[in-house]
Amino acid sequence: MNFFKSIENAKTGTSFDINEVLPQLQWNQDGLIPAIVQNIQSKEVQMMAWMNQDALLSTLQTKDIWFWSRSRKKLWRKGETSGHTQKLIEARADCDGDTLLLLVEQKGPACHTNRPHCFYNRIDEKMLVVAESPAPKL
Amino acid sequence: MNFFKSIENAKTGTSFDINEVLPQLQWNQDGLIPAIVQNIQSKEVQMMAWMNQDALLSTLQTKDIWFWSRSRKKLWRKGETSGHTQKLIEARADCDGDTLLLLVEQKGPACHTNRPHCFYNRIDEKMLVVAESPAPKL
Repeated sequence: MNFFKSIENAKTGTSFDINEVLPQLQWNQDGLIPAIVQNIQSKEVQMMAWMNQDALLSTLQTKDIWFWSRSRKKLWRKGETSGHTQKLIEARADCDGDTLLLLVEQKGPACHTNRPHCFYNRIDEKMLVVAESPAPKL
Repeated sequence: MNFFKSIENAKTGTSFDINEVLPQLQWNQDGLIPAIVQNIQSKEVQMMAWMNQDALLSTLQTKDIWFWSRSRKKLWRKGETSGHTQKLIEARADCDGDTLLLLVEQKGPACHTNRPHCFYNRIDEKMLVVAESPAPKL
């Protein structure tokens, strides 16, 4: 039985050493795991990006948010060029250890388009509608 | 320039035929895209699962939530065995078209462990703590 299956019925407060847990996360064939970023105040889901083990450890240790860029093939710190940083308040792993949820305090817009979040395209069975304009750049 | 890049600065309300948009979503090498499920009332992020094109189309058309099970290699409708269904209120695609966000009305617990959501394992730089117990089965 895998680790996450084995702790499904564990009592609230049961704890495990993070060094034992990290190898049990379901890293994909590229060594990555998806991380959902949610604004802890507004509860808005802001973005999703990918972490390798280094990115996750750096995030947990520094409270800055680090991701692995699949296009640039390097670690990046959220906000390193834009200044629109995210501060980690709480990190969570899901029931089967294949997705992370990061609750953050967000400084400025989270999206590179200067919108508060990345999910601005509404889709239905007939069309995609751009539902929010970019905020004016200050 | 890819489709999603090309519409970054489109005005609010600009729309595109869904049949043109679907092939532009960034399906991975297995033909899947991650879909984050958020409770539209509580704003809680409940789970993340994967959709292929059939699952997405069925979801948009029926408002039931369909996923592709990577382990069972088949389509499944959320709640088909548990009765804990999700009803689609709104679907969104992100700025680069590689992640979906589904705003849903949730019936019962969203997690197969009988918890309201799947992200019940809190992690920090030292440990993983099971932060919530399963609800008692009725």
